[in-house]
Formats: sequence, C-alpha cells, structure tokens
Amino acid sequence: MKKYNVAVVGALGAVGQEMIKTLEQRNFPVHRLKPLDIASNKGKEVFFNGEKVYVETAEKGAFEDVDIALFSAGGDASTLLAPIAVEENTIVIDNSSAWRMDPTVPLVVPEVNPEDLDSHKGLISNPNCSTIQMMVALKPIHDAYTIKRIVVSTYQAVSGSGQKAINELNQQAKDYASAKKMVHTVYPYQIAFNALPHIDIFMDNGYTKEEMKMVNETKKILCEDIKISATTVRVPVFRCHSESINIEVEKKIDIDNVIKLLTSAAGITVQDCPKTNTYPLAIDVAGKDDVFIGRIRKDFSIENGLNMWVVSDNLRKGAALNAVQIAETLVQRNLL
Amino acid sequence: MKKYNVAVVGALGAVGQEMIKTLEQRNFPVHRLKPLDIASNKGKEVFFNGEKVYVETAEKGAFEDVDIALFSAGGDASTLLAPIAVEENTIVIDNSSAWRMDPTVPLVVPEVNPEDLDSHKGLISNPNCSTIQMMVALKPIHDAYTIKRIVVSTYQAVSGSGQKAINELNQQAKDYASAKKMVHTVYPYQIAFNALPHIDIFMDNGYTKEEMKMVNETKKILCEDIKISATTVRVPVFRCHSESINIEVEKKIDIDNVIKLLTSAAGITVQDCPKTNTYPLAIDVAGKDDVFIGRIRKDFSIENGLNMWVVSDNLRKGAALNAVQIAETLVQRNLL
Repeated sequence: MKKYNVAVVGALGAVGQEMIKTLEQRNFPVHRLKPLDIASNKGKEVFFNGEKVYVETAEKGAFEDVDIALFSAGGDASTLLAPIAVEENTIVIDNSSAWRMDPTVPLVVPEVNPEDLDSHKGLISNPNCSTIQMMVALKPIHDAYTIKRIVVSTYQAVSGSGQKAINELNQQAKDYASAKKMVHTVYPYQIAFNALPHIDIFMDNGYTKEEMKMVNETKKILCEDIKISATTVRVPVFRCHSESINIEVEKKIDIDNVIKLLTSAAGITVQDCPKTNTYPLAIDVAGKDDVFIGRIRKDFSIENGLNMWVVSDNLRKGAALNAVQIAETLVQRNLL
Repeated sequence: MKKYNVAVVGALGAVGQEMIKTLEQRNFPVHRLKPLDIASNKGKEVFFNGEKVYVETAEKGAFEDVDIALFSAGGDASTLLAPIAVEENTIVIDNSSAWRMDPTVPLVVPEVNPEDLDSHKGLISNPNCSTIQMMVALKPIHDAYTIKRIVVSTYQAVSGSGQKAINELNQQAKDYASAKKMVHTVYPYQIAFNALPHIDIFMDNGYTKEEMKMVNETKKILCEDIKISATTVRVPVFRCHSESINIEVEKKIDIDNVIKLLTSAAGITVQDCPKTNTYPLAIDVAGKDDVFIGRIRKDFSIENGLNMWVVSDNLRKGAALNAVQIAETLVQRNLL
C-alpha cells in the first residue's frame, strides 16, 4: 500500500493535536508525519505512533516533500500558505474558513458529498464544525424527503475557540469554586454559568460569521435551494457541539422511517428513547467519531416538519476526523 | 390605601423566597405576611421588611384570614390546597402548572392579557417561566404583525428546578475544580459542562411537558391560532433563561419598527448593538425585572420572519415578579 508524507499545519493547536491522534488511530498510511507550526514553536515535540517528532516551521519550501497537508492554523495562515503548499504539489485539506466559499474549492463532508472531491485542484476545504454535524444528520432526510427550510439554534463548546478558551472556562470554574473573581480574555464576557449568543464576528446583516457559515456552507454542500436560519450560541461546555434543529420538508414525513434512515446511515448513531431518558449528551459524545441524534419528533406546527437534537465532537467529526476522512476518500477515489 | 393579608405557600423554596422579597421591594400593600410551608418546616423563620415571621403549616383553615395566597409549592400542593384556599375566600395566584390549562382559570402575564383577570373565580395561574418571557417579548410584535408560527429553543437555568438544583450545579463546579467525581441526584445526568435536552417529564408525543407548556400556554395567553414548536434545554447557568426565538408573521415586517415597538413596550429592555457586542446575557439579567431582548434580525429564509434572543430572570419575571404583578393588577382593576 502506498504511504504518504503528511504535514499537519498548526500541529500544536487543539485541532492539530487531534489531527495527529486521528491519523494514528485510523491507521492512515503515513510514511512520514511532518508537524508544522509558527517559527517560535520550531523544535517542540509532538508524538506520533509513540515516537517523538520535532515541529518545523510552516513556511515556503516546507511542503516540497509533503503529499498531503492538513491545515488548522487559522484563516490568515491558510490564506497565505495553502496556495504555496499547492504550488509545491501538496494536496491541502484546510480546516479554516478562508477558502470554503471559493467556487473552485470543494467543501466536503465525506458521508454527504464525496463526489465533489473529484474536481479538486489541490485545495480542499473542511467545513465549519457546526455545519459538518448538521450535514451528516440531514443528508439521509434530504435524500428521502427534500428539505425546504432549516431553523437551527446551537449550543457550542468552548473548544471550538481553541486551547486558550478551554483554559479560560477551566480557570473560571476553578475561580468560582474558590470564590475568586472570574476573568476573561478569549471571550468578550464570562462564559462560565452563562450563554453567549455570539460566535465569531458580527456581519453587517446582524448575523455572526458563524451563523452565515452555517447558512452558506449548507447551501454549497447539501443543496443551493435550502433555506436556512441560524442562531449560534456559546455555552459553558468543554467539548461537543449540540444543535436544536427544526426542518420542513417537501414530502409527507414519516418519523419511524426517518429514524430507520438515520439508524442505517454511515457516521450516525441514533440515541432516542424518551422512556429511558436516552438522548445524546455533550459529555458522553466527547472523543467519539459519530454524529449522535436524539429527540427526533414530528413538528406539529407545520404539515411536514420535524425537530431533532444533534450532538457531535467538534474537534473530531467537526474538524480533525472529517479532514482525515477527506484524505482517506482521496486515497479511495485515486485522487492523490 | 387598603392593605391585604398575603400568604406565600412554599415560603422556604427558591421561588417562595423571591416572592417575599418581591412583595417587599415593590411595596405591595401587605397588612400581614403569612409564610406557609409543609408541616416539618413549621416554626422556621423568614424575614419580611426586616422583621422575623414564623412559618406556619399550609393546611385547611390556614387561609381563613388570608386575602391573597401566592402558591409555589409544586403541582400536588396546588391541586390539593388551592381549591381549599379559594373556599376559604382567598384569591390564589398559583405558580404551579396544576391549573393553568383549566378553561375557568385565567393564565395571565400582566403586560399581555390583564383583561383575562376580570372573569376570575378566585384561582389564577401564573404561566411557566419560559412562556412568560416569550409572551412579553412577542406581544408587541403580535399586535403589529400577527404571528403565525414560532420555533423556539431554550437555554434554561438550573434555578428553574429549585434550590436543590442550584446546589447541585454549585457542588459539581466545586468537585470539578478539586478533581473529584461529580455526582447528580436532581438531574438524570451531570449538568455542569453539559446541555440536557430534557426539562420536566416526557409526554407520549415525544415532547417534554416543558415544551408542551410553551405550546399550550402560548395559545391560551396570546392567540389560539399561533403555531409553535419548542425544544427546551437545561444548561449550566444558575439563573435566567435565554431563548432563541424564530417567528413568522403575516404582515410585511420592518425590523427598525420592531425594535421601536419593543423599546417602548412595558417590561422590555432592548439590548441590541452588534458593533459593541451588546446583547442580553444571563449573568447580567439576574435580579432584574425586565425581559431583555437582543440579536433582533430579519430571518432571510422566509418572507416575513425574524430571530431574536430573549433573556429574563426565571425566578423574578418568570415566577415571583409575575405573580406579584398579577396581585397588583387585581388591586388596580378592583378585582379583589
């Protein structure tokens, strides 16, 4: 089996670390792992398959011996470095939002639109974490019933803002416990014991960039005709995003059949039994690969609608795992 | 000015304590405060206007010298004792869900449907906390544009489950900080760093009782024709419920006018300026009387829709304050 030189750009970040772990866990055919990060992190160590690997600087020339580069170092790094890597004949799978809406760049969730990879030109975008889990959950329903409109409200974990935000919630919880003043630097307000209706920056239309990512990426991945309205909210959860999703479909909907479709779909675990208080929970889903779905029920306010509760690990399926699955799909489809 | 003998039933609970504080803060014309609770709490002290008052037992006969009784001792106590109190010529304002859907019982938010008090027969219901704040927020919009459909997802504080739940989140935060195992008895799962899509019991239709309260109470208070779909979620917040509300209206909607209507409405504070990260937050609204509204923006997925973020103190406007305002309205309308 052919093996590949794989770079992880942003190797020391929360998602970068998860990418290295995921490559290892899924036995991706790695010939050599090349962790890249900003110059000041050069020489730091990461571990891959039990061996120390030293971080090198992410810069022009660093991709010449790399087949695949998984980028998760923020939008600016991707804007600058991804085209350089492509020029050095590396296939880039980029976790930032920088290239997602570029019409020449495939935006892919492997369970949903793997065929979009076929036309790639070296650069592939990994969708936003809150979009990915919604796409996995909605694809089987869209195929069977044709989704017309989505209204989604999210309950997003702090790990979506990186390791500093994880540390901030951790510190606030500890300061609360010892009756110290809670301080914040990552978020504009205290996140512990609070709910912030604000993720990423505000746009001119009153929505946040996170909300518009969910709107625009859904249209690109699933179907241009789907109408969607999103409210994205940060909650004091360390890991896993939860989503309250309401959809309206074109065809007559049958809840038992929806549950059957979701149960047999790839990448989904249905956890739905009200009688035994069974529904997905952020603290249980952490570290797991699937998208977990529960609270599936008919929406009685319209003719053909339903509600559901969708939970997934934002660092795994929402980022690292989806990126590695894109790499795996490239291998399967002979697109490398 | 006439003064009244006021009983608070469930005087030692989280809401009962807030009711006593609210009567005091709002200078309700109290002649004598009579705190009532279960027999085992008899003789315990509460404070009213700086004076000690001793708890008496809530039982038959206890209401004979009482003009108004504010009940917040759970559904069973209200089912049993409210009719007894009414028989003893006491006007009951009941915070439980026991009587809310009884067609002979007014269900009132004073800013929304005060006229429903005119036909009272001694027993008046205080709506569910998550319903009250939504009604205050939606009434000015419904009057101007006629609401057709609501899709709401909630972010509810643990204080909605009483003092024991407040203690449970507090203890879990402290156990987390000292790396101890977090235990739970009030909720079926750990609430700290989690989001539970489960409030109150599950009904046969797959919805929780809390969700159906929002549906049925909205129809009774605002308009029978409104369609509504709710997902209610408990989050690790001590106090104040937040709600992501999506509505569709009949008439052509103008966001600037909506903001004007909400700004001038009684009981509402608009906090909405994305440029300065201004939106309502649970930790800020705690202890305040108004319903706070922000993130007001057009829903581009339908012709006439909007989204907003509504936060209110579930123990005050969501319970104690609304009950005391009902009593005040009864006085104003000469209905005592």
